[in-house]
Amino acid sequence: MRIHIQNDAVATGFEISTDHWRRAVARGGAIAAGHEVSFGATAATLEAGLLEAELLITSVAALAGQLPLPPAPRLRAIFCTSAGLDRLAPFTWLPPGVALLNNAGTHSAKAGEYALMALLMLANRLPALMTAQRAGRWEPLHGSVLAGRQVTIVGLGGLGGAAAEHAARLGMRVTGVRARPAPHPACARVVASADLDAVLPQSEFLLLACPLTHATRGLMDRRRLGLLPRGGGVINIGRGALLDQAALGDLLEAGQLAGAVLDVFAEEPIPPGDRLWTLPNLMITPHVSCDDPNSYIPESLDIFFANLRAIAAGAPPPNRIDPERGY
Amino acid sequence: MRIHIQNDAVATGFEISTDHWRRAVARGGAIAAGHEVSFGATAATLEAGLLEAELLITSVAALAGQLPLPPAPRLRAIFCTSAGLDRLAPFTWLPPGVALLNNAGTHSAKAGEYALMALLMLANRLPALMTAQRAGRWEPLHGSVLAGRQVTIVGLGGLGGAAAEHAARLGMRVTGVRARPAPHPACARVVASADLDAVLPQSEFLLLACPLTHATRGLMDRRRLGLLPRGGGVINIGRGALLDQAALGDLLEAGQLAGAVLDVFAEEPIPPGDRLWTLPNLMITPHVSCDDPNSYIPESLDIFFANLRAIAAGAPPPNRIDPERGY
Repeated sequence: MRIHIQNDAVATGFEISTDHWRRAVARGGAIAAGHEVSFGATAATLEAGLLEAELLITSVAALAGQLPLPPAPRLRAIFCTSAGLDRLAPFTWLPPGVALLNNAGTHSAKAGEYALMALLMLANRLPALMTAQRAGRWEPLHGSVLAGRQVTIVGLGGLGGAAAEHAARLGMRVTGVRARPAPHPACARVVASADLDAVLPQSEFLLLACPLTHATRGLMDRRRLGLLPRGGGVINIGRGALLDQAALGDLLEAGQLAGAVLDVFAEEPIPPGDRLWTLPNLMITPHVSCDDPNSYIPESLDIFFANLRAIAAGAPPPNRIDPERGY
Repeated sequence: MRIHIQNDAVATGFEISTDHWRRAVARGGAIAAGHEVSFGATAATLEAGLLEAELLITSVAALAGQLPLPPAPRLRAIFCTSAGLDRLAPFTWLPPGVALLNNAGTHSAKAGEYALMALLMLANRLPALMTAQRAGRWEPLHGSVLAGRQVTIVGLGGLGGAAAEHAARLGMRVTGVRARPAPHPACARVVASADLDAVLPQSEFLLLACPLTHATRGLMDRRRLGLLPRGGGVINIGRGALLDQAALGDLLEAGQLAGAVLDVFAEEPIPPGDRLWTLPNLMITPHVSCDDPNSYIPESLDIFFANLRAIAAGAPPPNRIDPERGY
């Protein structure tokens, strides 16, 4: 097949190199052999590549800047090296019959460890201790172990599922929340999104790990954040717009919530001088929770070939996005 | 037996209450029944209690301020609700024939989780990210998962052993270091303290979890810290005097080491204005890594009764300290 690989115009550390491709082809077996591949990183190379390409591999950032899509008469599928494609919504630009695929699965191991770290940081009162360190204040605050404590995880895909496994392994009681409440092996119980309100008052820890869609935007609004127990903690590795940042800030300042660990924000980068930088008991990481530079591109390409294998076998590609649903 | 329980004169949140005692007695079975117990928190109550007591239960802080020990004609054993008794050394004040016991074991679960958190924080580059947050700087630094990476743990007692188990469970390659290099189930290898120099250059992460004794004071001096690989990270949950803080600071400032997570310090509290407060890529917690307020006193008292049980059976009490060795 004719494949075009479009990288970001600016270096991100997550480009697909010819070396990445060569090694993925070597791992991929028959389905990976014999393709004709072009690489590019400018608008002109994308335009030229799409005139011939049957498959496009690109990042959300590289694609978002080039929409609407240049003419792509032979295109059958777009594979994005991201899991959350919300920046590409609404998907009206997607030509009919072209499949949109993400790289869900790539992020699980890293996201699971980040979520475990964030839970341990909340249990150890690190947000308050980092606020004290910033102020040069010795303030012994003792935390307890995670065993037996309650975490609610919204979203049980690759990210939330991996987090649930780590939490359960340390003896936490895990409540999962997802659109349809199918059981999950690491969760003591799973409830439907519609029942979120009922579980929040018992959620000492809340982890947001779901995609941003029209159904989840603003999910944790001021009212729902207020349902969390006093002294609770919030982690967000999904998308910033899942929660009301201003309301969260108010609850942290009031001491109603004990801490938060946020990796994603409504506006990224966070503007200089923004209130977020100095809120008490808030730890900020700059959208790095789910991307492991050592494995990101190799795993993405392995997932790409796994999807090609499904298509060749006449099966639905496992990473196909439903543009209506948004994930 | 006649038991005196001496608490700290100032509230620490780790006092032994009559309620703690009653519940521990209920859990403890025959060995815990029928003792005559006095409680106190002043010099006068200690003096009065020791005139009659056969057993003294106290904290290191409460005891350190009262040395040399008031007359204690009937005393057979002192049980300290701490694992590290270095503040009581040298042990010349200990009356001949009086056994000194610590509460080793109490700290394992909490210390293991703290160590796991600290390893995850180093892997996720949190020390640098917290430095960036303090400066209001959005600086995406990506970290990798722990699997396959090398951690060296100095000390394989309750603290280091629990840390080794967590690290191994995430797929890390664990090298243990201890006085006599007996194997440990969670360690790929264990080397003798004398061979520490040989393993430091491969130690991406170094965790200090050993007691402070004349043999370990200054163990990680400037020369040994310099043997760690560029980009390495250091965690200390043992005692501050195990490492040369000034040398560590220099290596962090030079960017030779990527980060450090320290819970213990040569001087505690860290004085206001000390360089430690503002060193880049250093995360400080105020000596809270190993103490879980929910379980600390109950577990200590269970360990106390386990030692009484051993003594009653004519066996050596498992928590007896060797004053020569210091732990």
